[in-house]
Amino acid sequence: MTYREMSGAALDGELRAVRQRHQELSTRGLSLDMTRGKPCAEQLDLANGILSCVGPAEIAAASSDPRNYGGLDGLPEAKRLFADYMGVGNDEILVAGNSSLALMYDSLVRAWLFGVPGSPRPWGKLDKVKFVCPSPGYDRHFAICESLGIEMIVVDMNGDGPDMDAVERLTAADDSIKGIWCVPRYSNPTGVTFSATVVDRLSSMRAAPDFRIYWDDAYAVHHLDDDPQPLPSIVDACKKAGNPDRPLLFGSTSKISFAGAGVAVMAASTANLKDQMRHMGMQTIGPDKINQLRHVRFFRDMAGIEAHMKKHAAIIRPKFASVRASFEANVSGTGIAALSQPRGGYFFSMDGLPGTAARTVALAAEAGVKLTPAGSTFPLGRDPQDRNLRLAPTLPGLPEIEQAMEIICNSVRLAALEKLCA
Amino acid sequence: MTYREMSGAALDGELRAVRQRHQELSTRGLSLDMTRGKPCAEQLDLANGILSCVGPAEIAAASSDPRNYGGLDGLPEAKRLFADYMGVGNDEILVAGNSSLALMYDSLVRAWLFGVPGSPRPWGKLDKVKFVCPSPGYDRHFAICESLGIEMIVVDMNGDGPDMDAVERLTAADDSIKGIWCVPRYSNPTGVTFSATVVDRLSSMRAAPDFRIYWDDAYAVHHLDDDPQPLPSIVDACKKAGNPDRPLLFGSTSKISFAGAGVAVMAASTANLKDQMRHMGMQTIGPDKINQLRHVRFFRDMAGIEAHMKKHAAIIRPKFASVRASFEANVSGTGIAALSQPRGGYFFSMDGLPGTAARTVALAAEAGVKLTPAGSTFPLGRDPQDRNLRLAPTLPGLPEIEQAMEIICNSVRLAALEKLCA
Repeated sequence: MTYREMSGAALDGELRAVRQRHQELSTRGLSLDMTRGKPCAEQLDLANGILSCVGPAEIAAASSDPRNYGGLDGLPEAKRLFADYMGVGNDEILVAGNSSLALMYDSLVRAWLFGVPGSPRPWGKLDKVKFVCPSPGYDRHFAICESLGIEMIVVDMNGDGPDMDAVERLTAADDSIKGIWCVPRYSNPTGVTFSATVVDRLSSMRAAPDFRIYWDDAYAVHHLDDDPQPLPSIVDACKKAGNPDRPLLFGSTSKISFAGAGVAVMAASTANLKDQMRHMGMQTIGPDKINQLRHVRFFRDMAGIEAHMKKHAAIIRPKFASVRASFEANVSGTGIAALSQPRGGYFFSMDGLPGTAARTVALAAEAGVKLTPAGSTFPLGRDPQDRNLRLAPTLPGLPEIEQAMEIICNSVRLAALEKLCA
Repeated sequence: MTYREMSGAALDGELRAVRQRHQELSTRGLSLDMTRGKPCAEQLDLANGILSCVGPAEIAAASSDPRNYGGLDGLPEAKRLFADYMGVGNDEILVAGNSSLALMYDSLVRAWLFGVPGSPRPWGKLDKVKFVCPSPGYDRHFAICESLGIEMIVVDMNGDGPDMDAVERLTAADDSIKGIWCVPRYSNPTGVTFSATVVDRLSSMRAAPDFRIYWDDAYAVHHLDDDPQPLPSIVDACKKAGNPDRPLLFGSTSKISFAGAGVAVMAASTANLKDQMRHMGMQTIGPDKINQLRHVRFFRDMAGIEAHMKKHAAIIRPKFASVRASFEANVSGTGIAALSQPRGGYFFSMDGLPGTAARTVALAAEAGVKLTPAGSTFPLGRDPQDRNLRLAPTLPGLPEIEQAMEIICNSVRLAALEKLCA
């Protein structure tokens, strides 16, 4: 019986039992953390071979000396590998340092200071700049906009991607809208992969001439299943629609090789890349090409990356299953919350009763489980319904996840019951 | 006899002889490059041990897992090493990626977008922003200013640093002057190391409250001699003068370990670093800490770095000596040019007769030697006297340097003679 179906007296009894359970759980003195989308040590160990795969012989065999200066757009053999990875041509890719977030931040800052191809003037010289922010989404995307003073317009994330009716209505009417944030595969945190229809509509919709899709393909090969849902190429779709400069694609090996010592890439039209590199050339002489060579030597090709990702999946699949199982056993029958069904990526998204997310986080903290602050999956940290929670199950071990989920499920129930019995 | 002392007829004879020699040299079909301040392969080989000095055991022994996310200001053991290197406290350093140029560019962009501690408003919101640019100087510093639209005020580089009478006069009178570019040790390209008096005057002079010294200590340990001239601490001097937030220090191991795969650092007051990191935290989750650990493991401490630099000096000292010897043998007697006497760093600076630098570069190119474009050591690429040339002797081999210098010296003479006989 769901909580909505229960009588007031039954709910009061349930509240007393769940509160009692909360107090018991709180006495355990646990300290668990379900906030960080970080790989666990066992995942990192998978790539330890990368530490030793480049020595003097591999340096000597490289297309140019990767130890020296130069190569603003990356080592040629790394460009080939990651052009494959991003599904673009060899002239549509640049390979950079360890952070795709930095590539996104820097490209937005460049647009702010200098504009992009098609900009009448730098975005920072406009009265108003707005971004469409499908939410729940990735807090660090929103933080970049916030820091530059970009107005964020929330649109819903549906099961197949952003609410395109809303997106189209917005961009058609307002040329101060200069971008949209997208995590098109296993979206952070909802796990959604964009449908072909959404990709087509994003590519062909009316928008400002210097409108850009910030396409953060962070989880391009991060499948949990063996039959991943295909994602059509945004590059091809935008070319077909006559908007070849619209998408800016980002990716990295942070969750393939090492989170802090991977390789980040950007893919875009040659016009966009030429523009980026003109400014990048003021900022740096070039990226760490030895680390790029390490990745080329260790993974060799896309088949190597895909085989490696199956090892990741084998480690984290049981963790995702544990979260799901605990939710099914402890919450789903109550009808008070829905848990996402990610088939890849790093997160679960849970929607509880409106007005209970912040309380759930506080209750879980009392019982020793740290959760991502409520609201952080929305621009400015404000979830208008105070109902969304993000769970990150990759870093903790299975026993910790089981303990944490017991507390989280009980906290969700208690927060709901407090609301329903108030 | 110098050219100035020669009769018109003697000069005409000399012109014919030198032009004849130029034609002979030009037929050799050489292709030599004296433009790039890059280490040679033999120098890079010195650090090949860095490729293999970090494996799983060193990862496990690190203060935190350097493979994972985090550590915005760097790995703690790397911070300790580079605090020593920069001569600052452990809370006055951050260790970043492979490019100190990127640290400089980004910190200037942050000042532009958000201001610095003490700024009434972001620099980009001011009517006018100016930088003092001691010249000849480093073209990439000037290019950053140019790209942001910062007005550059040229002051002379003297034998002990910038012309401080001019600098003091400028900064005292004009609060739109927000910075000065300094390469305080073995300055690019003049080789000058700033005197204690210059350091004191920079620290204590009157300037805008948000004035910053961009102190690019690129050649901190890059001595050619065994008895380097000491450089007083700009950090200590500014603290003593009551201007603790004035200096921003930058350094890197690009010319210690690998030019493209070193570690870059920034040192500054805690107030400055806190401000930088607030914005850096929007841009990136953290630097490549594995590469930082490689540097810690390979060099261990300052003594290790200093011992390593002696090996560099042993390789490049003969190259510097060759440039000097060729100049002494072929040009200095003519009285038409002066060559710097660098005791470290990567460059020679040559001042020829006014109005001859561009012509010298063109003549050298005709004879197969690529030189840095005339003017590039001045803001906007404009040497007001068209007389300064930069020579970079580290990358070519000794035989190439000898061949190149023969051509360069003859080109300097020919350009001067064309002028004198015109």
